Amino acid sequence: MQLLKDRIRKDGKVKEGNVLKVDSFLNHQMDIALFREMGKEFKRRFAGEEINKILTIEASGIGIACVAAEQFDVPVVFAKKTQTKNIAGDVYTTQVESFTHGRVYDIIVSREFLGKGDKVLLIDDFLANGKALEGLAALVEMSGAELVGAGIAIEKGFQVGGDAIRARGIHLESLAIVESMDEKTGEIVFREQ
Amino acid sequence: MQLLKDRIRKDGKVKEGNVLKVDSFLNHQMDIALFREMGKEFKRRFAGEEINKILTIEASGIGIACVAAEQFDVPVVFAKKTQTKNIAGDVYTTQVESFTHGRVYDIIVSREFLGKGDKVLLIDDFLANGKALEGLAALVEMSGAELVGAGIAIEKGFQVGGDAIRARGIHLESLAIVESMDEKTGEIVFREQ
Repeated sequence: MQLLKDRIRKDGKVKEGNVLKVDSFLNHQMDIALFREMGKEFKRRFAGEEINKILTIEASGIGIACVAAEQFDVPVVFAKKTQTKNIAGDVYTTQVESFTHGRVYDIIVSREFLGKGDKVLLIDDFLANGKALEGLAALVEMSGAELVGAGIAIEKGFQVGGDAIRARGIHLESLAIVESMDEKTGEIVFREQ
Repeated sequence: MQLLKDRIRKDGKVKEGNVLKVDSFLNHQMDIALFREMGKEFKRRFAGEEINKILTIEASGIGIACVAAEQFDVPVVFAKKTQTKNIAGDVYTTQVESFTHGRVYDIIVSREFLGKGDKVLLIDDFLANGKALEGLAALVEMSGAELVGAGIAIEKGFQVGGDAIRARGIHLESLAIVESMDEKTGEIVFREQ
């Protein structure tokens, strides 16, 4: 998606440790007009697919997912992160290891809001090692819902997540795929799509 | 806001400890069409005010804030919660005590995204004791930005937050104010506005 790639080039910052800082427009301060265009692009990429629910994960997936959901006219559910297994109530839960924070945590979704009959599109801001997306896919499977696909804003194509998710047969659409980043020069190379 | 009050009556559940469970449409599963109407109502309530930024707090404020922001055509910043003071970078930070979780945590916003020239509308899903809103107001003040007002979906009118915030001269608009809730009967009484 050209608009997103241009914005990453203009406002994204390459940091050490393969971190792409896009917090001025994507995941701390959020450009809602950009999210709207991203939502339209997700709708185009999944045109013809029957989707009746969007599932994302707190916190930086939520804004994108909600604005995108307006294009699909469906509810949004967000998986909650917790570091304690002390979870009350009927939930689906699985463990995720965070690339950004190097931490293991549990994610949960209430059984009330995910189940048979749901045709789910996963949405998140970043795809790096794919652990968060795999966790969301696991919740969908546990619940008996159908996984239609996954929409990602920025995929780091040089990390394993994209390949792993696609290898599982999941319809993955990333609006921008970063092929390489150079911390010294600040250069960002995108994969042609 | 009648649409919201009707939805609370229909789908809200009164739980022990003065907890109003609205997770089927507000803060776990999110009804985006409802959020759109809430956004339009916030716009009406703050018509004539100059607002160029919305500030919210993760996680359940984000969806409402982003969908509402489309009515204002402004960016959204969300304050992040952390339990460690081990914060890298230039941030504004303050402490908040959570009603829901009975926990104290720090909230942070990058100094890059809040400052002089910003005319800020705070948005959050619930107002109970007002600690989260007071924390957000503190970040705005530290940053030199101007606090225009606060928009809340559901205020628990029998808790101290609403009065405390209004007593500070902050323009607070709550779309529904719960005057009382009865855990045994499930009855919810709203304050006339």
